[in-house]
Amino acid sequence: MAQDMRLTPVLDHLDANLDASLDRLFQLLRIRSISTDPQFKDECRKGAEWLVEDLKSIGFEASARETPGHPMVVAHHEGPTGAPHVLFYGHYDVQPVDPVELWQDDPFDAKVAERDGHKVITGRGSADDKGQLMTFVETCRAWKAVHGTLPCKVTILFEGEEESGSPSLKPFLHAHAEELKADFALVCDTDMWDRETPSICTSLRGLVGEEVVIKAANRDLHSGMYGGPAANPIRVLAKILAEMHDENGRVTLPGFYDGVEDTPPEVLASWETLGTTAETFLGPVGLSVPAGEKGRSVLEMIWARPTAEFNGISGGYTGKGFKTVIAAEATAKVSFRLVHGQDPVKIRAAFREFVSSRLPADCTVEFHPHGGSPAIRLSYDSPFLAAAQKALSDEWPKPAVMTGGGGSIPVVGDFQTILGMESLLVGFGLADDRIHSPNEKYDLASFAKGQRSWARILAALAG
Amino acid sequence: MAQDMRLTPVLDHLDANLDASLDRLFQLLRIRSISTDPQFKDECRKGAEWLVEDLKSIGFEASARETPGHPMVVAHHEGPTGAPHVLFYGHYDVQPVDPVELWQDDPFDAKVAERDGHKVITGRGSADDKGQLMTFVETCRAWKAVHGTLPCKVTILFEGEEESGSPSLKPFLHAHAEELKADFALVCDTDMWDRETPSICTSLRGLVGEEVVIKAANRDLHSGMYGGPAANPIRVLAKILAEMHDENGRVTLPGFYDGVEDTPPEVLASWETLGTTAETFLGPVGLSVPAGEKGRSVLEMIWARPTAEFNGISGGYTGKGFKTVIAAEATAKVSFRLVHGQDPVKIRAAFREFVSSRLPADCTVEFHPHGGSPAIRLSYDSPFLAAAQKALSDEWPKPAVMTGGGGSIPVVGDFQTILGMESLLVGFGLADDRIHSPNEKYDLASFAKGQRSWARILAALAG
Repeated sequence: MAQDMRLTPVLDHLDANLDASLDRLFQLLRIRSISTDPQFKDECRKGAEWLVEDLKSIGFEASARETPGHPMVVAHHEGPTGAPHVLFYGHYDVQPVDPVELWQDDPFDAKVAERDGHKVITGRGSADDKGQLMTFVETCRAWKAVHGTLPCKVTILFEGEEESGSPSLKPFLHAHAEELKADFALVCDTDMWDRETPSICTSLRGLVGEEVVIKAANRDLHSGMYGGPAANPIRVLAKILAEMHDENGRVTLPGFYDGVEDTPPEVLASWETLGTTAETFLGPVGLSVPAGEKGRSVLEMIWARPTAEFNGISGGYTGKGFKTVIAAEATAKVSFRLVHGQDPVKIRAAFREFVSSRLPADCTVEFHPHGGSPAIRLSYDSPFLAAAQKALSDEWPKPAVMTGGGGSIPVVGDFQTILGMESLLVGFGLADDRIHSPNEKYDLASFAKGQRSWARILAALAG
Repeated sequence: MAQDMRLTPVLDHLDANLDASLDRLFQLLRIRSISTDPQFKDECRKGAEWLVEDLKSIGFEASARETPGHPMVVAHHEGPTGAPHVLFYGHYDVQPVDPVELWQDDPFDAKVAERDGHKVITGRGSADDKGQLMTFVETCRAWKAVHGTLPCKVTILFEGEEESGSPSLKPFLHAHAEELKADFALVCDTDMWDRETPSICTSLRGLVGEEVVIKAANRDLHSGMYGGPAANPIRVLAKILAEMHDENGRVTLPGFYDGVEDTPPEVLASWETLGTTAETFLGPVGLSVPAGEKGRSVLEMIWARPTAEFNGISGGYTGKGFKTVIAAEATAKVSFRLVHGQDPVKIRAAFREFVSSRLPADCTVEFHPHGGSPAIRLSYDSPFLAAAQKALSDEWPKPAVMTGGGGSIPVVGDFQTILGMESLLVGFGLADDRIHSPNEKYDLASFAKGQRSWARILAALAG
């Protein structure tokens, strides 16, 4: 209740100063910080320096830190004793703008415009991720203006290489682990569920990638001369892959589901309310019937269930026409999407044992690992999660939903692995923001109510 | 017995005139009839014309017939009433000689030399197929010289495009079916079992080739976003291919073995004596355990049993590294080697039905046919086969063996399909003749005893 009393004037301040906050965002959006293109290297530095100066003006101890690539912006601000310490993450680099002729407006001269009946902020980076990260900066500015302090201890990390594979991130986290570690991270690079419904992403699947090569004869053979007696690696590979799922779509690797927890019924029930069906999810890509584990919804399959997928296969003659060859080898790229409780090391070992134990005479196998990361899952009973969920629900027309992510977001995995820190993924993007494409935009409501959302979240976390 | 009395002087005549027959072969070998290289077009014609003149000199009614490619040599000679009519097939074109610097002797200046302790005829085409076809021509010449007649009615067909895909053969057979049809064909383009053991190839497997494409989503999908609910065509394809063989290596297509006859025990027993084991057959290619139907020898697998082989497979990401994609489609090239009694049309239909009936929801399939030809098999109880087998056994140190061929020889299939005529495949090549390679040779014994063999075979057939 004390925090609520402190919150209201901050919200009012944010509303009263929206135009000034837009002007600041426009300044940042004018900086062409395209990280993947070397000719914009100076612009990336300019983006980092702009943020450092802005954070300093709020009262942060801020600096741009060198990396082999583009600088990291790191900033610190103290908070009240007993309040949590949060690390806020965003990225100031943007995607290239090609093909620039498809842009309705200058991608680097942002403005407020009306699109499809909504007021939006135009320009490259408006949604991904400059507009999003500035919602948090503006909240800090308002809180400081109103109260002279922040309700939590805040560390900020703005990366400049997110759109080019984050090559410096892991080494930077390792080198500055003590400085960056907080109670948890706030990652602002995701979408709302829809225009009225905020979302907290509480889980991301992990990944184990394996390339498997089955070898038999010491050279390709003619299928007339050898067809029959000669082992065929494509046949061996197909048979092994075919045995990796049972008739109910479950993965058959021994121990695969060890540690996998059932999703709480109330969470499943909340997903049911989201309106995603097999038809709405699969229809746009030309499918209709879920191919995964029987008896689970598509959202549960993607957000809370592990998979084994075959991402590539090749062997023998694959060109035009036909060759009656028996190949010397065949290969498949196999990946496992992991959920909380699964150990990537054990899953990789189980796969290798599964294949090796099924090898017929004369066949050998090689494995090549391609990536391995555990799943991320926020504890459903985390008080931070409950606080953030209530805060978001107070701000938006509809209550906040907990969602999952089917893929991985590397920074979240790195925070978990390197800093031992969970992340709350909250963002205000929308599915029609056209990030990475021409005519990127960020709804004005996302920007304005995003700021207010962070104010509520910080108040709730502090309370 | 009458024929035996007629045979002996022919054999003597052949022996007495070996040097003259060698001179004629050398003349033919000097003609650079490389069919695949347009710059040797005139040489090919020269080869055909040389043969026409030589056959005329024996008493054949012979001519070179035009085709869109190189000429066909066709010759006829009458035989006694009641004796069979045989069509003898060979080819006068040869392979290129590159890399010519690897030849120990001029490839187009044949001579008799000693190689590895054996007297051989050197040069391109000595074994494949000029030396072989001249064994028959010399037999006819000797028979005519001794008796003024031939013991059988003989038609000769010498092709000039065998080494370049025989593009004119089928149309020529169709256009001249009545002229060329005989009781059976003698095809002289194969090997002995070993230096002491002649061989009659009595069966060749047929072939059905199919390319199958499984399609699911309307585009490639990200396995993080869609992994689980989305149908994966590689998984579907692997499962279907895996079901095409049972645990005993038998093909599971319904009706696949309909019409397939067991090989007579005496034939199997004769194959057992040949000394081919899994080790001798598979060892050189790095294998050791037959992967085909359980309980059958490698020779039976290749010569007398049908197969389903996967000659190529591809789908999804197959480059270096890894992409977590769920492919929109996956494809396999599947072929069936057929034996006597199997209908290529039915086998293709059975395969398509097998795949189509296993397609899960949302998947579609496309089939692309690649070739279809029935197997060839001489009746084991054919009197011609028995006659030829005895004749060969009389000439060589060891009895003639009946062998099979795992692949197809197009001309034999064409004789069967277009002329409705079975073929006896008898040749005197050896595995070390290096056909198609530098230093091709033909053993002098192959040439000399080959002539004698044909004399015995003609006598036996006439008898």
